[in-house]
Parts: sequence; C-alpha cells; structure tokens
Amino acid sequence: MKIYTRTGDKGKTSLIGGRVFKDDIRVEAYGTIDELNGFVGKAITELSKDQFSDIIDDLEKIQHELFDCGGDIASVVKERKNKLTEETVNYLEEKIDKYSEETPEIERFILPGGSKASATIHIARTVARRAERLIVALMKEENAPPPTVLQYLNRLSDYFFVAARLVNFRLNIPDVEYIRSAKVFHLTPDSNK
Amino acid sequence: MKIYTRTGDKGKTSLIGGRVFKDDIRVEAYGTIDELNGFVGKAITELSKDQFSDIIDDLEKIQHELFDCGGDIASVVKERKNKLTEETVNYLEEKIDKYSEETPEIERFILPGGSKASATIHIARTVARRAERLIVALMKEENAPPPTVLQYLNRLSDYFFVAARLVNFRLNIPDVEYIRSAKVFHLTPDSNK
Amino acid sequence: MKIYTRTGDKGKTSLIGGRVFKDDIRVEAYGTIDELNGFVGKAITELSKDQFSDIIDDLEKIQHELFDCGGDIASVVKERKNKLTEETVNYLEEKIDKYSEETPEIERFILPGGSKASATIHIARTVARRAERLIVALMKEENAPPPTVLQYLNRLSDYFFVAARLVNFRLNIPDVEYIRSAKVFHLTPDSNK
Ligand code: B12
Ligand code: B12
Ligand code: B12
Ligand SMILES: C[C@H]1O[C@@H](n2cnc3c(N)ncnc32)[C@H](O)[C@@H]1O
Ligand SMILES: C[C@H]1O[C@@H](n2cnc3c(N)ncnc32)[C@H](O)[C@@H]1O
Ligand SMILES: C[C@H]1O[C@@H](n2cnc3c(N)ncnc32)[C@H](O)[C@@H]1O
Ligand SMILES: [Mg+2]
Ligand SMILES: [Mg+2]
Ligand SMILES: [Mg+2]
Repeated sequence: MKIYTRTGDKGKTSLIGGRVFKDDIRVEAYGTIDELNGFVGKAITELSKDQFSDIIDDLEKIQHELFDCGGDIASVVKERKNKLTEETVNYLEEKIDKYSEETPEIERFILPGGSKASATIHIARTVARRAERLIVALMKEENAPPPTVLQYLNRLSDYFFVAARLVNFRLNIPDVEYIRSAKVFHLTPDSNK
Repeated sequence: MKIYTRTGDKGKTSLIGGRVFKDDIRVEAYGTIDELNGFVGKAITELSKDQFSDIIDDLEKIQHELFDCGGDIASVVKERKNKLTEETVNYLEEKIDKYSEETPEIERFILPGGSKASATIHIARTVARRAERLIVALMKEENAPPPTVLQYLNRLSDYFFVAARLVNFRLNIPDVEYIRSAKVFHLTPDSNK
Repeated sequence: MKIYTRTGDKGKTSLIGGRVFKDDIRVEAYGTIDELNGFVGKAITELSKDQFSDIIDDLEKIQHELFDCGGDIASVVKERKNKLTEETVNYLEEKIDKYSEETPEIERFILPGGSKASATIHIARTVARRAERLIVALMKEENAPPPTVLQYLNRLSDYFFVAARLVNFRLNIPDVEYIRSAKVFHLTPDSNK
C-alpha cells in the first residue's frame, strides 16, 4: 500500500464528506487533536506499568476517544452519527474526583514538572486547551451549538491536571507552588456542583 | 558575540530582504518549521545508534532540509534561488516505499505511541502538518503557486508515519489499532501511482 | 475541592476582570505561555542536578516568571499592577552573556538536538517564539504599547538558545552546523550594545 497519494500537494484535502483548504479551521481543529494524541502516547511511554496501570489505562482510553473527537470534527456529513458520547465526559469527571481525593489539596498554582511523565501530561493539558480554543473558533464560525467534543476537551484538561499531580504524588515528588500566586483555587460554588 | 540585538523588542523583525511584524503569517510559517526541527532533534536522541542508524541518518538529513525550507520561506528577495530541491521529495518517497514494505500492512488508524522515539516521531508528524497548514495559508494570502516546500511537508508527515511504525516494529511493539476505526487505509487509486 | 466547574463548557471563560470566548487572542497568548511552561518543566527533568544546577535554577526561576507573564496578560483590570519586572530582562541578559562566553563562538545555524535536555530546550525556544508572536498580535489588536512581557519573551528565546548550546558543550556533544548555512551570526552592531 502506498501511504501517500500526492492529492494534497496543492493545498486542498478531504474531510469526511467534503473538500477544503488545509488551513480550514476544521482541519486545524482535528489536526490539533491529532497532535494532542501524540503527547498522550508519549506520556504513556514514560509511566511504569506496575505503579501507574490505572493512569495508563485512562490514557489509552483517551487516545481512542480523541479519534472519536477527530472523526466527529472531520465530518460534515449530516447522516453520520457522532462517535463521542456524553458518558465519556461523566467518566472523566469520576476519575477527576477520585484522583483529586488521592492527592493533597492545593490553593495556589503549581509549576508543571517534577517527573518526566508529569511534565508531559502537563504539556498534554495545554495542548488539549489549544484544541479547545480551536473548537470554540469553529463553533463560532459555523454558528453551531457547542458539541460534546467541547465539553470533553474542557474536562480532559482538568483530568490531565489531576493526573499530572497524582503521578508526582505517587513518586513522592512534592508540587512546587508558584511563589507569587494568590490563593486561586477555592471550593466550587454550589451552582457548579 | 552578543546573540541578542534588542531590535525586535517592539514587535518587528527581519526577513531575508524585508521587515515585518512578528505575527506575519510568513514568520509564523518558518517559526513552526523551526519548532518541527526541535522535535526531529529530540527524536534522534531517543533512537539507539546500532538499531536505527538508517532512521537517524534520515532525520539528520531532514533537519538540514528543514533549514532549507525555513530559508526559502523567510526570503522575499526575488534574486534568491530556493534551496529546497524537488529531489528531496523523491528521496522521501523512496524511503516511504522502502519502510512501508518492511512493516506489516494496516487497514485502520493506529494509536500514536508504543516507544518514546515512535511517540516523538508521531508528534513531529503532527507538527509537520501544522506547518503545512501555515504554508497553505501563506500561499493563499500571497496568491502564489504552491512551492516545493508544500509538497515536501506533505510527504514528510507521511514519512514520519511510516518511520514511527518501523521503529515500533523493530522493537517488537505491535501497533494498537483505534478500536472504532473503519477500514480507512486502502490501495492507492491508479491515478496516484 | 472540585477542580472542574463546567462553567466553560459553552466556550466562554474568565479573565482577571472580564469574560471572553476561549479563542480570544488574549487567552491564546497566555495559554501558549502555559504550554511553554510545560516544556520548561520537562527540560528540568532531563538535566542532572550535579552538572546543571545553574541551568536548573534558571529554568525554575523562569517558570515562576512565566506565571507572572501569564497573569499580566490575563488581566484587563486597570488597577492591577504588572508582576513581571524589567529586572528579569536584565537578569536574562547577564545569563546570556555568561553562557555565551562559556561556549565556543558560532558563525552558522546549528541543528537543534544532541542531548535530550538540549533538544527540549530548543523546543522551548520555539514555543517561546510562538508565544511572542501571539503577544505581538495582541498588542496590535489592542493598539497597546509593547509590554515588558514582549521584551522578556524575546530575550527568553535567546536565553534558551545559549542554554541549549551550553548543555551540549558540557556533555561534550559538539554542535552540528547546518551544512548549507551562510555565515549568519556576526558581531552585534554598535547601535545594539
Ligand atoms: C479524518 C481523517 C483523519 C483524521 C482521523 C480522525 C479520526 N477519524 O479519528 C486524522 C487527522 C487523525 C488522520 C490522520 C492520518 N491519516 Co487520515 N483521513 C481522514 C479521512 C478524511 C476520513 C477517515 C474517516 O474516519 N472516515 C470515516 C470512516 C470511514 O469511519 P466512520 O465515521 O465509521 O464512517 C462511516 C459513516 O460516516 C459513513 N461515511 C463515511 N464517509 C462518508 C461520506 C459520505 C458522503 C456519506 C454519505 C457517508 C460516509 O460510512 C462509514 C462506514 O459506516 C480520510 C479520507 C476520507 N475521506 O476517507 C483520510 C485518510 C484515511 N487518511 C490518510 C492518511 C495517509 C493519514 C495519515 C497517515 C496522515 C499523516 N501522514 O499523518 C494519518 C494516520 C493517523 C494514524 N494515527 O493512523 C489517507 C490514507 C491513504 C491510503 N493509502 O489509504 C486517507 C484515505 C486520505 C488520503 N490521503 O486520501 N486522518
Ligand atoms: C531566516 C532566519 C532564521 C531562520 C532560519 C531559517 C533558515 N535559513 O533555515 C530561523 C527562524 C530558524 C532562525 C533562528 C535563529 N536565529 Co535567525 N535569522 C534569520 C535571518 C532573517 C536570515 C538568515 C539567512 O538565512 N540569511 C540568508 C543567508 C545569508 O543565506 P543565503 O540564503 O545563502 O543568502 C544568500 C543570498 O540570498 C543573498 N542574500 C541574502 N539576503 C539578501 C538580501 C537581499 C536584499 C539580497 C539582494 C540578497 C540577499 O546573499 C546570501 C549569500 O550568498 C537573519 C537576519 C538577516 N536578515 O540576515 C536572522 C539572524 C541570523 N538570526 C539570529 C538569531 C539570534 C537566531 C536565533 C538564535 C534566534 C532564537 N533565539 O531562536 C535562532 C538560531 C537557530 C539555530 N538553530 O541556529 C540573529 C543573529 C544575531 C547575531 N548576533 O548575529 C540574526 C542576524 C537576526 C538578528 N537578530 O538580527 N533565524
Ligand atoms: C489566569 C488564570 C490562569 C492562568 C494563570 C496565569 C498566571 N496567573 O500566572 C493559567 C492559564 C496558567 C491557568 C491555569 C489553570 N487554571 Co486558572 N485561572 C486563571 C484566573 C482567570 C485568574 C487567576 C489569577 O491569577 N488571579 C489573580 C490573582 C488572584 O492574583 P493577583 O494577580 O495577585 O490578583 C490580585 C489583584 O489583581 C486583585 N484582583 C484579582 N482579580 C481582580 C478582579 C477585579 C475586577 C479587581 C478589581 C481586582 C482583582 O486581587 C488579587 C489579590 O490582591 C482564574 C479565574 C479567576 N478569574 O479568578 C482561573 C482559575 C484559578 N483557574 C482554574 C483552573 C482549574 C486552572 C487549571 C487547573 C486549568 C487546567 N485544566 O489547565 C490550570 C492550573 C495551572 C497550574 N499549573 O496550576 C480554576 C480553579 C477552580 C477551582 N476549583 O478553584 C479558576 C478559578 C477558573 C474557574 N474554572 O473558575 N489559570
Ligand atoms: C484557568 C483559566 O484558564 C483560562 N482558560 C480557560 N480555557 C482555556 C483554554 N482553552 N486555553 C487557555 N486558557 C484557557 C481561563 O482564563 C480560566 O479562567
Ligand atoms: C488524513 C487526513 O488528514 C487531513 N489532513 C490533510 N492535511 C492535513 C494537515 N496539514 N493538517 C491536519 N490534517 C490534515 C485530511 O482530512 C486528510 O484526509
Ligand atoms: C532570527 C530570525 O527569526 C525570525 N523571528 C524573530 N522573532 C520570531 C518569532 N517570535 N517567531 C519566529 N521567528 C522569529 C526573524 O526572521 C529573525 O531575523
Ligand atoms: Mg477548562
Ligand atoms: Mg498529507
Ligand atoms: Mg528574538
């Protein structure tokens, strides 16, 4: 099989059901989700299987879900059903709650880093947020309602935050607080419970 | 020698033959090629010399070619000849064909990851595609014909894909397929041979 | 404490003193500074404490300063004083001069890479430049004078360049020059001293 087709050499490419320039905001969005998937794959290689099997399993599940996201964004075919389900968002929330309980509370921003895997998960956190910004731009441009992908990416960056903290905590590497940080983390207002 | 000149502290910078704001799409494009070059450099450090000398050689060759690309994009001087040649594209195609034959065929998308080097090459793949999108935007803005750089980057991301797969294959790490993937890879239509 | 609030699920988010869409150029800018911070954290984990305590200290100092930058960019509150000071720029310049003296002079571009930490610092260099481009875009959009953050990021990428070189130099890994490079580095013109 030839992997390359040369059909994109002049700047256009295929969606699921359409053809656009490669700098289309839609392509930008799922291209960034693809980039994020690379960092998730990288993080997995930096985690030891015996100490972090739970997080490795999460991350691999997330890799599949990112493909679901990518496909949903790549599609402009009305008949096609979205692959990403709302349950994935609930599942992330459960994991976030669980891991939050396992780690000490914080009041201030913390420096990303500590261990290799934690640093990479922090990078993934920020690339997820970059992808989220592009989805927002896409939704605005198309005047479309925010899809599950948007909710998912929002929660995903919070998942990465707690997972990055948990990794360091289990490795006995304390979080370093941003020295000039005010107390920025607080109990969630009732309205958000 | 002082590396810093302070001349860019107010937001403008030099092209080869011009001066523009730093957020110029042209600067964005070669700045992203520079970023890509960093990930290629990183990948090299993650490959063992005895098992992967061929890929290491490729990647170092690519690093030089990315500087060729960067220079070509940075130049607005008519008299300057482009450095990137069409042969580099042919060379990449040969390598892609060779490495494709060495690895098992696939029908479905695969998760980026497996080994550190493979994961980093996948990241490079997605950053090459980010750079490609910016070149497309640049070409559209200038109403200019697609340059060799565009072809090169398009092929480069396919090269990274097969190289990432080859690395894992040699390390006996099987590709993990995206579980909800349809059969997306198929024989290239004749027209593309 | 619940880390997620669900308030951003429809695409809007909070600044320090305002509410905007997540694809706002301001959010893009400090989101990219956050991404940069991740790579700095990663680089630290790749440096051995006995050989590189000076650079590790620099990088941790820089992580705090990047939070200062992020806060300054995130704020649209007139009463709030900027956190990033001009002294941080001077400090970087001193470090750049010091490290430049410690490493051999170069005349040509060099390939990013050599060691893991050096490669990652090169990536940080390019992400700092991506952040710089966004700050320029923000300043233009708001018709505002360039802030210290802009100067700081400009100097920071030069700092990363010399630090990346120093790391390889101490590890006895020679810089590889870009083979088709002209002599691009030269003594700084007097006007810039
Ligand atoms: C979207 C996409 C991507 C996304 C994937 C996002 C995702 N799905 O998660 C991203 C950006 C990640 C990607 C990456 C790559 N891709 Co791609 N990708 C595509 C694309 C456009 C669609 C694939 C897809 O998911 N189709 C949908 C399918 C079949 O699944 P489904 O949702 O279940 O679809 C069902 C229904 O929706 C319906 N349906 C589907 N399409 C349509 C259309 C209409 C009109 C209707 C009515 C119904 C319908 O039928 C399906 C079956 O029930 C195809 C081109 C194309 N248009 O097919 C290329 C394609 C598969 N990619 C290709 C390549 C080369 C790659 C990369 C190697 C590129 C690179 N160098 O990085 C990587 C590999 C990544 C990896 N890790 O494996 C090539 C493969 C070439 C070949 N020889 O076969 C293709 C064919 C593009 C091309 N060049 O022509 N890709
Ligand atoms: C493009 C560029 C880059 C690109 C490189 C892309 C590439 N070429 O592959 C990127 C973005 C990667 C880059 C990065 C950096 N750069 Co730079 N870069 C430049 C720039 C604008 C051009 C360099 C170049 O390639 N010139 C072309 C040359 C000489 O080669 P050539 O193609 O063979 O050119 C021939 C012809 O085209 C002709 N010609 C060339 N220019 C012109 C112009 C006209 C009008 C005409 C008629 C003919 C002509 O003459 C040449 C000889 O035959 C210069 C500033 C400048 N305008 O010179 C800064 C410059 C060299 N960079 C500089 C710096 C500091 C860096 C970085 C350290 C920044 C950082 N912190 O990351 C890094 C180092 C990267 C590395 N790995 O080594 C500084 C060096 C300062 C100093 N003290 O010397 C410079 C001088 C900019 C400045 N601040 O003033 N850079
Ligand atoms: C900017 C910001 C960021 C920036 C930080 C940049 C920086 N400061 O360096 C970035 C993008 C990095 C970030 C990241 C994250 N953040 Co944040 N962030 C904020 C934000 C908008 C402001 C925080 C801040 O610095 N406030 C300023 C403070 C208090 O410090 P100060 O400058 O000294 O402020 C003084 C004065 O300026 C004045 N003041 C401050 N604000 C105002 C406003 C007005 C009108 C006036 C008159 C005066 C005034 O009073 C202060 C005390 O003297 C808050 C939301 C909010 N509006 O508070 C969320 C917030 C703290 N973040 C939050 C979260 C979840 C995160 C992340 C985990 C997200 C993620 N998944 O990645 C990460 C964590 C990063 C880490 N490494 O720890 C949540 C916390 C939720 C909770 N349960 O508490 C918040 C509350 C947002 C939310 N969802 O509601 N964040
Ligand atoms: C924690 C803070 O991060 C900012 N924020 C929220 N979403 C994003 C995103 N996708 N990218 C960057 N920054 C974001 C908001 O300012 C929020 O209050
Ligand atoms: C494999 C699929 O990836 C998408 N595609 C093609 N080029 C790019 C790029 N530069 N960036 C992101 N996605 C791209 C197209 O949708 C193509 O069909
Ligand atoms: C060294 C060269 O890099 C380019 N340059 C200057 N600032 C940036 C930036 N933020 N991003 C990308 N490229 C930049 C200019 O062309 C300069 O001359
Ligand atoms: Mg959020
Ligand atoms: Mg392509
Ligand atoms: Mg500069």
